Amino acid sequence: MEISLVLDSRDPEALATFWAPALGYVVVGSVENYVLLMPDGAEGPKLLLQRVAEHKADKNRMHLDIEVPDIEGVASRLEQLGATRLSERPMAEHDSHWIVMADPEGNEFCVCQAADA
Amino acid sequence: MEISLVLDSRDPEALATFWAPALGYVVVGSVENYVLLMPDGAEGPKLLLQRVAEHKADKNRMHLDIEVPDIEGVASRLEQLGATRLSERPMAEHDSHWIVMADPEGNEFCVCQAADA
Repeated sequence: MEISLVLDSRDPEALATFWAPALGYVVVGSVENYVLLMPDGAEGPKLLLQRVAEHKADKNRMHLDIEVPDIEGVASRLEQLGATRLSERPMAEHDSHWIVMADPEGNEFCVCQAADA
Repeated sequence: MEISLVLDSRDPEALATFWAPALGYVVVGSVENYVLLMPDGAEGPKLLLQRVAEHKADKNRMHLDIEVPDIEGVASRLEQLGATRLSERPMAEHDSHWIVMADPEGNEFCVCQAADA
């Protein structure tokens, strides 16, 4: 059993140019309405971007957390790639710190302090 | 950098009793509005169930694919755990086969033929 992620997208080819460098992934294939991204040597789930007609609307029910040692540095790098900061300052709860962001299509994700950082 | 998944839930404790056996995960912790599931020895992303007030409404923009050798057998097992089949028969496209299902809160996911099966 293996888990992979599927994210609906208005424009998977364009969105791949954000998520590949954001995650350190590479585009390994593209067919019709799908673009497949996989980790570039590291561990991690596959990410399949799937073309849909509808725009992103409500808050996503499922989202990614990206755990890193340096949330400010990574958040700034992701902004340069096209992400938007949704929380003005980092959130904090239960000894966790994170920054809420959105990808270029508005999909929420969080940049989180790695537990061992 | 590590990727983990966060799924909004009306009742994370109840939903964990579906997703843990569904994925072969174990509940490793629970604090206030969060229940954390991790793979039981195998590789795979963490899954954090997060309590929210709102019900699941529209189709989720991001969902899980579960890749297995035997999609019918796994789909039947997941139905017994509380999942619902959303597609009457398996879908097929680009040499892939999958069954669209929903978890007990209605979150869509797919049981997919593993590429190497």
